[in-house]
Amino acid sequence: MQLVTVGTVAFDNIETPFGRADKVVGGAATYISLAASFFLDKSGLVSVVGDDFPTSVMDDLRARGVDLEGLEVLKGKESFFWAGRYHYDMNTRDTLETRLNVLLELDPKLPEAYRQAPYVMLGNLDPGVQEKVLDQMAERPALVVMDTMNFWMDSALEKLKQVIARVDILTINDAEARQLSGEHSLVKAAEKILAMGPKYLVVKKGEHGALLFGAGRVFFAPALPLEDVVDPTGAGDTFAGGFIGYLARSKDHSFDNLKRAIIVGSALASFTCEKFGIERLLQITREDIDERIQQFVDLVDFDIELVEG
Amino acid sequence: MQLVTVGTVAFDNIETPFGRADKVVGGAATYISLAASFFLDKSGLVSVVGDDFPTSVMDDLRARGVDLEGLEVLKGKESFFWAGRYHYDMNTRDTLETRLNVLLELDPKLPEAYRQAPYVMLGNLDPGVQEKVLDQMAERPALVVMDTMNFWMDSALEKLKQVIARVDILTINDAEARQLSGEHSLVKAAEKILAMGPKYLVVKKGEHGALLFGAGRVFFAPALPLEDVVDPTGAGDTFAGGFIGYLARSKDHSFDNLKRAIIVGSALASFTCEKFGIERLLQITREDIDERIQQFVDLVDFDIELVEG
Repeated sequence: MQLVTVGTVAFDNIETPFGRADKVVGGAATYISLAASFFLDKSGLVSVVGDDFPTSVMDDLRARGVDLEGLEVLKGKESFFWAGRYHYDMNTRDTLETRLNVLLELDPKLPEAYRQAPYVMLGNLDPGVQEKVLDQMAERPALVVMDTMNFWMDSALEKLKQVIARVDILTINDAEARQLSGEHSLVKAAEKILAMGPKYLVVKKGEHGALLFGAGRVFFAPALPLEDVVDPTGAGDTFAGGFIGYLARSKDHSFDNLKRAIIVGSALASFTCEKFGIERLLQITREDIDERIQQFVDLVDFDIELVEG
Repeated sequence: MQLVTVGTVAFDNIETPFGRADKVVGGAATYISLAASFFLDKSGLVSVVGDDFPTSVMDDLRARGVDLEGLEVLKGKESFFWAGRYHYDMNTRDTLETRLNVLLELDPKLPEAYRQAPYVMLGNLDPGVQEKVLDQMAERPALVVMDTMNFWMDSALEKLKQVIARVDILTINDAEARQLSGEHSLVKAAEKILAMGPKYLVVKKGEHGALLFGAGRVFFAPALPLEDVVDPTGAGDTFAGGFIGYLARSKDHSFDNLKRAIIVGSALASFTCEKFGIERLLQITREDIDERIQQFVDLVDFDIELVEG
């Protein structure tokens, strides 16, 4: 078991200005596990679903090396459900409905085989649940990456900070970085957040790319301009999955390798945006990913002589 | 005369969530000319001001090789005035007041010495005025760059398209690219806009960087994450000035050199954001610019092996 992921496994109703899809399979842990699976033989997923959750998707996950011993299936119950509507910019959205359902009963018990995993991805979820996963690890993992959102900053800030203090890398979006730090400047926000514990901060900016802060350095990766963005849902989770999957495979936590992991995560996230739900992630191959990574290389590549006097 | 710039020369009142400044010198042509002056011995400025405009600023411009024979000074009249307030994101703003004043009388007559200039920068202005400048050039310039804004798309679309058809490079922001093309995807928007005439399109995204489309290629340059953004007013114009100034100096219009010009423009724009008005642009040296360009190189630099099977 190279990686343990905790997070939601869910159904989503998604409306965009250009289309809609109902009851598509989603959830942070689903996207993370699928994205990471391109780099790993075996990871474990910790979550809960109702017995309405399609066994075919569970088969898809297992076929990609995602162990589901940690996925509790509650008989006669309904899976977590989220409905959202994207604004015209496709970068912001409103939540239309949230039915927690089985999520209210999520009290993760890590299977024995998961407790030695060197990499842990804490998907966006109640920080109390994230903490319980960390508490059950046999020893301090080699690397813990944590995602969270403004909801927990509003409702559970102290617990959230407790968990943030225990992770290596925090991934949040730009508005959340500003909220968590009370600083408008992302440079200053990063300083304050890194002082809370993590060694690195990834600021996700959706279609505007991502920033990596840490070790006194900063790195920026753009998002790939796409012909069509069908549905950005899960892009941030796909990014995180590709990011930690690449790190877990390479076992190199240097800043230079984190930069590579950001590019890989961004490449994977760009696929997720091309179809509703996890559909595109289930289609792509390692070759598709390589091709897209090359597009990132080309997108930002330039050479410049400093301006002589 | 290597470059002719037409655009506003103005006073601005600026409010941000973090400060305010009244009656600071601004205007598109001011920022463009100052930014371009780092790369050129001589450029000409075409605009109009009232006799309330400070002669000290005219001296600053002249000291940097900006010829003001094309700047009409109307006695007893007031200069163009704009007041705006930035939102918390510092990337969007509301116009609080616009007093066109002398701008209503701007009927540009190019001095003889300007008409042979190989480079022309059409700063954001009534497209009818931009066209009059083009009409007065002795021959088709080597390169014409045009900036515009949504206001002209709403109020003078046909005239605007007429001018766009005559330029080599159009610079607009992402929302304007979407409005002008009717396409949400910036990739598709770029295709449609390039079909209108220009060889290249630069999409400015403020703190989210800039995209260059053309020649079947795309390039992305980030904006530098700054400790403090004091006032983004004029950043887009500074970008344009650095961009065309670098091109006019190097006389190389290849895609690879346009990429360099975008990095140079972005570096200069980052300085403008650090103080109100043109203050920071008047302080910096060629060495400051070099140092900042190096920061851009470091910001996006990564090396990656494609993911092996």
